[in-house]
Amino acid sequence: MNDTVKSIATLLKDLDGILLFPHINMDGDALGSCTAVCLALRALGKKSYVMINEPVPKNLDFLECGCSTNDDSVLDEVQLALMMDCNSMNRIPGREHAFERGKLKGCIDHHMSKSTDIRFDFVRTEPKAAATGEIAYNLIKALGVPVTLDIANCIFTAITTDTGNFQHSNTTARTHDIVGHLHKIEGFNSKEISALIYDRKSKGALKMETDVLGSLNYYEGGKIAVGRITQDLLKRNGCTMDEADGIVPRIMSIDGVEIGCLLKETEMNVRASLRSRAYANVERVAAGFGGGGHILAAGCTFEFPIDEVEKIIVVPLKDALKK
Amino acid sequence: MNDTVKSIATLLKDLDGILLFPHINMDGDALGSCTAVCLALRALGKKSYVMINEPVPKNLDFLECGCSTNDDSVLDEVQLALMMDCNSMNRIPGREHAFERGKLKGCIDHHMSKSTDIRFDFVRTEPKAAATGEIAYNLIKALGVPVTLDIANCIFTAITTDTGNFQHSNTTARTHDIVGHLHKIEGFNSKEISALIYDRKSKGALKMETDVLGSLNYYEGGKIAVGRITQDLLKRNGCTMDEADGIVPRIMSIDGVEIGCLLKETEMNVRASLRSRAYANVERVAAGFGGGGHILAAGCTFEFPIDEVEKIIVVPLKDALKK
Repeated sequence: MNDTVKSIATLLKDLDGILLFPHINMDGDALGSCTAVCLALRALGKKSYVMINEPVPKNLDFLECGCSTNDDSVLDEVQLALMMDCNSMNRIPGREHAFERGKLKGCIDHHMSKSTDIRFDFVRTEPKAAATGEIAYNLIKALGVPVTLDIANCIFTAITTDTGNFQHSNTTARTHDIVGHLHKIEGFNSKEISALIYDRKSKGALKMETDVLGSLNYYEGGKIAVGRITQDLLKRNGCTMDEADGIVPRIMSIDGVEIGCLLKETEMNVRASLRSRAYANVERVAAGFGGGGHILAAGCTFEFPIDEVEKIIVVPLKDALKK
Repeated sequence: MNDTVKSIATLLKDLDGILLFPHINMDGDALGSCTAVCLALRALGKKSYVMINEPVPKNLDFLECGCSTNDDSVLDEVQLALMMDCNSMNRIPGREHAFERGKLKGCIDHHMSKSTDIRFDFVRTEPKAAATGEIAYNLIKALGVPVTLDIANCIFTAITTDTGNFQHSNTTARTHDIVGHLHKIEGFNSKEISALIYDRKSKGALKMETDVLGSLNYYEGGKIAVGRITQDLLKRNGCTMDEADGIVPRIMSIDGVEIGCLLKETEMNVRASLRSRAYANVERVAAGFGGGGHILAAGCTFEFPIDEVEKIIVVPLKDALKK
């Protein structure tokens, strides 16, 4: 089942009372796509909200646009509950009840659909879309709603963050075509938005990053690089873990590094973020510890102290280099 | 005088023996634009070379494509000497003689033309082009030459480096339109090119960067941030100064920083790179020390020790915050 954007637009026109659901640990694509569609629905005179139950990350605060709520009772009736950039109940923990209120349930996503826990009334999955924001843009055009500056900022953020600023291999001609159109919107300024997203790093976050990058452990002649964020490091710099977002790509920018590993010590456990540059299968390594992901980007968690985790994970990472 | 791309293409078709000149301290736009046009001229059966007299920066080595030479005697006759991404003799030091050999002299640039030291036979200046690479692309289309993968890689590099990966305010709908076309070229892979440009940082260069960013001096409550690269720091990390390229943008990513200043100690003097985020006029500060640039990005040099330079330059930088 893969519905067309056009058929979804036709359906939406007849509905009112629409709750939109970004995934947990919301990112620019999830929140940007939801807010853009919410604003478009409101432009059509409909009641619509983005349903969240965690704080909006500081660098994405401008995406809120008065759309989000953590209280689904703002709507007496939920004619549609719509997941965007995700497709499963385990991606919206704590909001399952609100989602269940939807008389219709839908999903718009660019991840391959894997959900078995929801019976969706419609699904639009475009694995070749660089971002769910691309599908959101096409939906808004299909709704016939003019793209306002707020909508343009949401779509731009969705796309630029999910494509690594148009560098990742998910970027296509369509990606550039859509963003080219955004540049024609009155007042659109990619630099302003980009500065909001990327250039509000706290001095503590910068210090944390330089501490991590300045004390990487290299293995196998530099083909593996392992960094660590401890609770002590976070506290010392007054940071939260979400401020560590930019560190893994910086590890991968080092010449000769095939596998990058960032160990994050939370209050409960140690999470390992794994990336490989070209060929090493880190999904297999993560799966060996009960985690998952993709061949070139995966993660897993451990219940051991961080020092032990590093010793343990390095063994299969070395193996992954050979295959 | 501003010639059209079409008229330049018509002229080029009748010429043979063409030397292309990128500016000194070549960057992705200068070398990418020259190589792209050189490849297009060769595709038309013409003899053409990119004339350089410095090593190609390591991260741009893939732009060379067998086009560059430091010996203009490879051509018996130079029917055209063409500057790209620059417009003045002082931007091609050591290559003036080779340029003078051109029976015709041309200039294709996106900087406002300021040259008074050359009588050009044609000039194409597009200050609204995000990169000279945009003009090069249009010229290649006007020449009727198919865009090969090598040409696409050159144009992509020119554009993505000069736009800060499509984030800077020079980016337009046309920029995205052109890059959208590049994505349709067989084999084009933005991620591969981007990894070549950005992800080959030496471990020493990373260490240098973390040292600089980890020891910034802040002034005026954090509105001014000053970093330093000393000769000692370079030697300790086995780096050259061109490996410091990415540091200034990182300084500007810090929340609250309006002015970023990076002091670079060379063997002869100290160079100050100045950036402001939104309003502070650093061009005026640089001009006060005999330097220049733009309001938001400027530079100047000093003949004092680096410690003194910091004390001296901070005074007018504080003033610049007030205006």
